[in-house]
Amino acid sequence: MVQRVERGAPPIRHVTTRSIVAVRGSSLEVRADRVVGEAPLEIRAAGPDQDPVAVAVTMRTPGHEDELAVGFLRTEGLIDGSEVVGTEVGDPIALNQPDDTVIVRLSRPFDDSAVAERHFVATASCGICGKASIDEVALRCGPLPPGPVVSRSVLIALPELLRAAQRAFDETGGLHAAALFSPTGELIAIREDVGRHNAVDKLVGWTLDKGVSRVDPAHHVLFLSGRAGYELVQKAIMLGVPIVASVSAPSSLAIELAERFNVALVGFVRGQRANVYAHAWRIH
Amino acid sequence: MVQRVERGAPPIRHVTTRSIVAVRGSSLEVRADRVVGEAPLEIRAAGPDQDPVAVAVTMRTPGHEDELAVGFLRTEGLIDGSEVVGTEVGDPIALNQPDDTVIVRLSRPFDDSAVAERHFVATASCGICGKASIDEVALRCGPLPPGPVVSRSVLIALPELLRAAQRAFDETGGLHAAALFSPTGELIAIREDVGRHNAVDKLVGWTLDKGVSRVDPAHHVLFLSGRAGYELVQKAIMLGVPIVASVSAPSSLAIELAERFNVALVGFVRGQRANVYAHAWRIH
Repeated sequence: MVQRVERGAPPIRHVTTRSIVAVRGSSLEVRADRVVGEAPLEIRAAGPDQDPVAVAVTMRTPGHEDELAVGFLRTEGLIDGSEVVGTEVGDPIALNQPDDTVIVRLSRPFDDSAVAERHFVATASCGICGKASIDEVALRCGPLPPGPVVSRSVLIALPELLRAAQRAFDETGGLHAAALFSPTGELIAIREDVGRHNAVDKLVGWTLDKGVSRVDPAHHVLFLSGRAGYELVQKAIMLGVPIVASVSAPSSLAIELAERFNVALVGFVRGQRANVYAHAWRIH
Repeated sequence: MVQRVERGAPPIRHVTTRSIVAVRGSSLEVRADRVVGEAPLEIRAAGPDQDPVAVAVTMRTPGHEDELAVGFLRTEGLIDGSEVVGTEVGDPIALNQPDDTVIVRLSRPFDDSAVAERHFVATASCGICGKASIDEVALRCGPLPPGPVVSRSVLIALPELLRAAQRAFDETGGLHAAALFSPTGELIAIREDVGRHNAVDKLVGWTLDKGVSRVDPAHHVLFLSGRAGYELVQKAIMLGVPIVASVSAPSSLAIELAERFNVALVGFVRGQRANVYAHAWRIH
């Protein structure tokens, strides 16, 4: 018997439409682009007559929240799966979005000591860290001031400059790189890691030499070999870099964050092309 | 003045060499391959006369531990950078590896209440979650039993089958996919997310329908659109899937984990090629 392929219904916030400035060689176009959705989800678990226990907050693409919650609890060893009696998606009081909380109902009490021991509630290198919204970033940082711009010709040259500098990439194919460039395209520093977040953190750490800043981040471009998610744009804002470019896709929340904090966010920098998703005035 | 590019010295465990079985169309070769290193790092912070406070554990590529620690504290808003007086890498008593702990020394006391509030110590969707070693997984799972094998011809067909099924990928270019296939190459289920971990968790959640397993994971192949890191192999082991394949690179720790738990780990499944990093006997 051939089994039916399970794909699930397309969720509403799965993909969003954004207006972008498309760099195409020496010409510019303004057009619509489809962007992958990203939003925080709080996962809770509860046994019979038990108040739901907050287990984890994770950034995810909206859709299949029930499966994500059950799968997370299962792969982390907090449940074995057979005790799941159902799931409830949504908590309009605690969060504005209708599907940003999931409660997994169990046939036995959920042991919250396992959660306390393992500190699931936040994720460190994932950048969410208990701050479930852009407002949390706003508490610590203001919008970046007007400052340097970068030319289109410099922008589209960055991938080749990065590749030339990435020592280990060709050897293993497994490393992400983050690099600081001057607005004129000089490579200032590059760091690599299996984790995109770590590559950026290493680069940020390099800028601080025993407490003294080696460079002024406000006059540099952060270039990433991978995709530009929320947490990477957040790290750029914390450092004060006003231009973030990557060879791959940004997420919807990364664009919202960049817009709010005056960061130029550029994706799909490939060949003679680039898509500018926020603050295109910094690209000239 | 042209600034010197800062690349740092190549760290010792940055890249490791592994013996692999290389599928090249219908032929096999045994050869050496270079693999990117991955290991947990504990980040601590301390003011003058203060015991170091454990702030976070993160999986990272060895190298530039001092920068990673300072950059992490800076981008998470726990320090502003000017108070860093130095770093100490290594704690041979607590961990076997010489460079898996960093202490960041500060000129003012480090406020550990900020850490307690934000639960940095573990990362949820990153899969490390307070378990800093493969031994932690061993406490909860045993090695997977002998079971299904998959043919080389099925294996190298998987990327095309995945792409055909990935609804949103072509539209946004921003989604990772995880899919379950039968050993004969039938697509059983597919899930997508901006996060690779979330895509796998959604898939695992799908297998559990109100506590009843829809499929026997021991008779399936997990196929990933991204790279195969430690935490994804860990999730496969927790679920009980004996064959994990991806279009991209595995990390060194993912290979070690797969070897210990009898999981066939296949990377760089592209065109007519694939590299088998562990338990190649499951590929025939």
